[in-house]
Amino acid sequence: MTAPDLITSPGLDALFTPRGIAVIGASRDPAKLGAALARSVTAFPGHVALVNARDPEPAAGIYPSVEEAAEHGPVDLALICLPARACADAVAEAAKAGVSAAVVYGGGFAEAGPEGERYQRELADVVERTGIRLLGPNTSGFLAPAHGLTASFVPGAADVPAGRIAVVAASGGVNHALAFLLGEAGHGVSLAVGLGNSADVTTADVLDHLAADPHTTAVALHIESIADGRRLADAVSWLTTTRPVVALVVGRHDVGAFAASHTGALATSWRTTRAALAQAGAVLVDDERELVDAVGALSLVRLPPAADPGVGVVTAQAGPGLLLLDDLRGRRAAVPELTADTRRTLADVLPPLTYQANPVDTGRPGPGFAAVLEAVAADPAVDLIAGYALHEPGAFDLVEAVKTARVSVPMALGVGGAGDDVRRARRALLDRGVPVTGDPSGLAAMTGALLADARARSRTTAVPAVPVHVEVGPGPWDEDQAKTLLAALGVQTMPRRTCADRTEAHRALAELPGPVAVKLLDAAVLHKTEIGGVRLGVQTPEELDAALDAIETAGGRRFLVESMAPPGVDLVVGARRDPVFGPIVLVGLGGTTAEALADISIRLAPLSVAEAAAMPAELAGHALIDGWRGGPVLDRSALGEAVAALGDLLAAHPELAEIEINPLRITAHRLVALDAVCIAAETTEPLQEKVMTDGRTHQ
Amino acid sequence: MTAPDLITSPGLDALFTPRGIAVIGASRDPAKLGAALARSVTAFPGHVALVNARDPEPAAGIYPSVEEAAEHGPVDLALICLPARACADAVAEAAKAGVSAAVVYGGGFAEAGPEGERYQRELADVVERTGIRLLGPNTSGFLAPAHGLTASFVPGAADVPAGRIAVVAASGGVNHALAFLLGEAGHGVSLAVGLGNSADVTTADVLDHLAADPHTTAVALHIESIADGRRLADAVSWLTTTRPVVALVVGRHDVGAFAASHTGALATSWRTTRAALAQAGAVLVDDERELVDAVGALSLVRLPPAADPGVGVVTAQAGPGLLLLDDLRGRRAAVPELTADTRRTLADVLPPLTYQANPVDTGRPGPGFAAVLEAVAADPAVDLIAGYALHEPGAFDLVEAVKTARVSVPMALGVGGAGDDVRRARRALLDRGVPVTGDPSGLAAMTGALLADARARSRTTAVPAVPVHVEVGPGPWDEDQAKTLLAALGVQTMPRRTCADRTEAHRALAELPGPVAVKLLDAAVLHKTEIGGVRLGVQTPEELDAALDAIETAGGRRFLVESMAPPGVDLVVGARRDPVFGPIVLVGLGGTTAEALADISIRLAPLSVAEAAAMPAELAGHALIDGWRGGPVLDRSALGEAVAALGDLLAAHPELAEIEINPLRITAHRLVALDAVCIAAETTEPLQEKVMTDGRTHQ
Repeated sequence: MTAPDLITSPGLDALFTPRGIAVIGASRDPAKLGAALARSVTAFPGHVALVNARDPEPAAGIYPSVEEAAEHGPVDLALICLPARACADAVAEAAKAGVSAAVVYGGGFAEAGPEGERYQRELADVVERTGIRLLGPNTSGFLAPAHGLTASFVPGAADVPAGRIAVVAASGGVNHALAFLLGEAGHGVSLAVGLGNSADVTTADVLDHLAADPHTTAVALHIESIADGRRLADAVSWLTTTRPVVALVVGRHDVGAFAASHTGALATSWRTTRAALAQAGAVLVDDERELVDAVGALSLVRLPPAADPGVGVVTAQAGPGLLLLDDLRGRRAAVPELTADTRRTLADVLPPLTYQANPVDTGRPGPGFAAVLEAVAADPAVDLIAGYALHEPGAFDLVEAVKTARVSVPMALGVGGAGDDVRRARRALLDRGVPVTGDPSGLAAMTGALLADARARSRTTAVPAVPVHVEVGPGPWDEDQAKTLLAALGVQTMPRRTCADRTEAHRALAELPGPVAVKLLDAAVLHKTEIGGVRLGVQTPEELDAALDAIETAGGRRFLVESMAPPGVDLVVGARRDPVFGPIVLVGLGGTTAEALADISIRLAPLSVAEAAAMPAELAGHALIDGWRGGPVLDRSALGEAVAALGDLLAAHPELAEIEINPLRITAHRLVALDAVCIAAETTEPLQEKVMTDGRTHQ
Repeated sequence: MTAPDLITSPGLDALFTPRGIAVIGASRDPAKLGAALARSVTAFPGHVALVNARDPEPAAGIYPSVEEAAEHGPVDLALICLPARACADAVAEAAKAGVSAAVVYGGGFAEAGPEGERYQRELADVVERTGIRLLGPNTSGFLAPAHGLTASFVPGAADVPAGRIAVVAASGGVNHALAFLLGEAGHGVSLAVGLGNSADVTTADVLDHLAADPHTTAVALHIESIADGRRLADAVSWLTTTRPVVALVVGRHDVGAFAASHTGALATSWRTTRAALAQAGAVLVDDERELVDAVGALSLVRLPPAADPGVGVVTAQAGPGLLLLDDLRGRRAAVPELTADTRRTLADVLPPLTYQANPVDTGRPGPGFAAVLEAVAADPAVDLIAGYALHEPGAFDLVEAVKTARVSVPMALGVGGAGDDVRRARRALLDRGVPVTGDPSGLAAMTGALLADARARSRTTAVPAVPVHVEVGPGPWDEDQAKTLLAALGVQTMPRRTCADRTEAHRALAELPGPVAVKLLDAAVLHKTEIGGVRLGVQTPEELDAALDAIETAGGRRFLVESMAPPGVDLVVGARRDPVFGPIVLVGLGGTTAEALADISIRLAPLSVAEAAAMPAELAGHALIDGWRGGPVLDRSALGEAVAALGDLLAAHPELAEIEINPLRITAHRLVALDAVCIAAETTEPLQEKVMTDGRTHQ
């Protein structure tokens, strides 16, 4: 893993840690944006200058221009509170006055039709010409509590406490909503940024900045749309080497029209984006609440990298413990058996009627609770304790138990209860560096996040493409050529003959083992089954003639004759070029049901064989490929090699748009490609006609 | 819908609204249970008597017996704080002294092995003998804040404010956790009960009690295991006619061992329980947080019954609005187009750059916000408003906007922000009867609950079984007999002949239209395909002979010859007897993928045709049955009739354990049963070998 190039380009220090600020368009009308910003920056400890070209009052500190303002102190950052049409000039003027960064708050840019698009292009031009860094337009700004800077117009934003979590949100509204939630949860923020339209500064730029931010220990990421997916994935990969990233991606369902109105960009494929972020090491969550718990926990604790860390579950109440365990199982958390030693120790500490497996149910918690935590933590299979207890003032002091327990692994805790007293207890635990939340599902979210981060770091994510020494040629490719390509990549196929006429087909039938499939062979025909161009199970010369008749009727002039594969379970695997992320690979189950459910695993290519081999485990229907009802078991490493090779191929050959094996059959002894399609990058075949999609096009 | 019989049996008034209380086993040792309970009931306004047979001190109000305590004031309820072995006698003694209800707190009963099981049987015997109503054992009790009664040993329980929501939880710990969460959310509770081992009082009993409780407007239900599923479903059906019920069911994943240790009962099938509760009118949720938002909203607002109410989404910030919309789409909420009239009104109120479809994005909220709420509410397609705004003190007063808006439909609101000020705003909205939460996912949970409740009430759920005039006979049934039964129920099959020998089979081939399927016919063989007893697509006499040879080799002596059905999409439908709920019907997609995913819809039988017809819409793969890739479209009413008939059959014929059609094929013109199996109630065929399961047995 190497640092991304842009680390060395003009950074964002001037934006987020300026020495001085100018509010451009500062207003005396308290309802105006310019007045709100002027109020927000009053607490900033550095130089603050208000600028209003039409209503200057130098005596009250309101200057007619940035230039003049800059004479009275350093101005690194300009906060532009002007209508869209005036912003480009204002940014240019600021840059000329030596300002290094700007925020443009107002809307009316790319999200608002052709005129707005023009205004946004003008802003981008100024950025390119001057090198100034620009946040926005169409954002409520950012908060940097550690620097005393509230560059936001949202009332109450200044009250968000300083903390260790950075928020990087596509939307200004979500940025503030998350910052408030993190404040309420006792965490606060180190920096909280709403990107808005991203005319210059992107999510990836902010992530790069955070990789060197001493105040930030974890990052909450909110994604609506992405311009450069690879750049984002690289930034996340780099950042997660030092700081965990928790990501919430919008657009699982169809929200396209509203999303476009919001930032002027189309929503990115939800599945591909999630897959790419997970592959880059981010922890994915489903909603804001889970985000707050997950990033809160990861801001305090990070497990060592591990493929499958074990969770010791300790609960003072069985019912909430059961909710927790159910949720953890859904997250595929390992809740390992405790050793006989551990259970002996627990038996000494706990009353006889308590459940002393994993979970450990302490019954009414007492002074032995600390000893239980110690015993479970000491179990060799336990890497993390997830503990739940109702707060019981006067009866049981969980904080004291945590203080006195010599616990050798990290803990995450849920403390149920209401009122100031329980809030103080949670505060005390947070102050000791112990992640804490109020209920079992929050605790499961915290635990799941710690596990997901440890698992992600146990994988090698950055893999250089393996040079592929394959003659690809210009295309189009027929099935035989596609299979020749597969063979060169190490993917097995059945014995086959290409036949220019019926005589050759009869010779092939005679020479090939077993019954054969007979197929129309034509690079121009992508869906030969649908036009009657495939006949299966042909055994006799008479059957072959009938098959050839049918295929000729369907327009076939050349034939592929191929030995039938043994029965098995079918997969669909492929590699294609995503418009946002570039080369990706996909693995799904064969058949229409899996297709209708969009049950597909996705990764960016190139990728390691191990990473590719892990893809099928993500499929909802993965039980089918593990010997379902006595059927064959998938050879994961063979699959990994095939999928990684397809990815390497696409990465190395820009002339290829897509290659798909459908089906790739799992038989008792090996993986066999039964059909394959290669598509050239020039093809006009629309994406939605492909057999394999990520599900969005069908809904 | 009629009131359940048990409404007239000894009710729970003495338990939850006693005139006086005795604490049996009251202790001077502050760490003891008996001391905790004595502390808890100090605020009770009625008569309180402490009883300690071994350490009486009448001067300090500690009596040697309940009998003596009852001489000083009425004692309706005894709180038993004794070891398991002493409880049955204590309850009997209390009953003798005229006490009508008791709570047994301690553990050591059915959850704790044979000795405990005996203690629990003794308790049940006392209940049966005396008619006393008993909550527990193995529970932390209940809270009834409206009556000033805290019959719980959990510290802090007395601080939960009185409210309108009743909690009925399997677990005492969950009961308290939920009561605290509801208190924190500003709702409070009317009653909060932890059932524990349910030696007498069951969840259904408490639900019946709540149906007549004037303090309760909504019920939060937590389910771990169920003894009598039908009784529970009836109680929920009855209660939901007047009060919404929101249910959280534990056990989606394998938590069996820990669950058994908790209450001594096996976890009920999660899927079947959820299906039964939904059918009875409950709103199902996935975790405690969703539960709190859902029941909180429903305690304040209930939509009129409607099959698909329309949601008007209003947001002051686009980003959170997008999160909300994404979540609502996942809940299949209708977010309808607004009329041209509505949009014209919005255009007058809102700035030009805002999104004025549905969602309506107001941009920075201003005085026009109330007018936006009014306009959206007035739209004929809108039955409910879901609104989100960041709290912006000094800039925008959402509470004032809600106060002044003349809004004609219910609202649910999300108010983002932190600190006391936003808490006051939320409080003010709650006090006006407007459900409010803090974030978009909470708002989606509230909205989804209001929709689910309105949808459930738009269905007729209680359906008497239609008498089935079918000769069923004693079984076992072969495929021909099973299909004759289906035909009598109105389910179509293909033309077929039963053949006692090869001559009859050849005659059948000659007489039946098209190619035929030839099958081994033997009521003792349930899985004929697996033993080679089925040959498909037989056309010629030679092929028939080959097929008969094979079937005879597989042990067949009689044959079923049947015309092949046209191609189509296969379903699996069936009816069976669930050990907890009795007759249920199931609908799933055919094929191993759907089976591996356990993608199945379940209902209790009998059920209406309309209810059965709605089942396929719940399948994750439902796109496949709606004309996927030019395929056939399911005739939902024909399916509904078939499934309802299967349910009626099972309800009417206790001698049948199960009937399954696999596959039931959707063809271009009709639904056809291709294979059917009937199993007698006496069969020893283990359930897990069935083709259709609810998924638990495979995990």
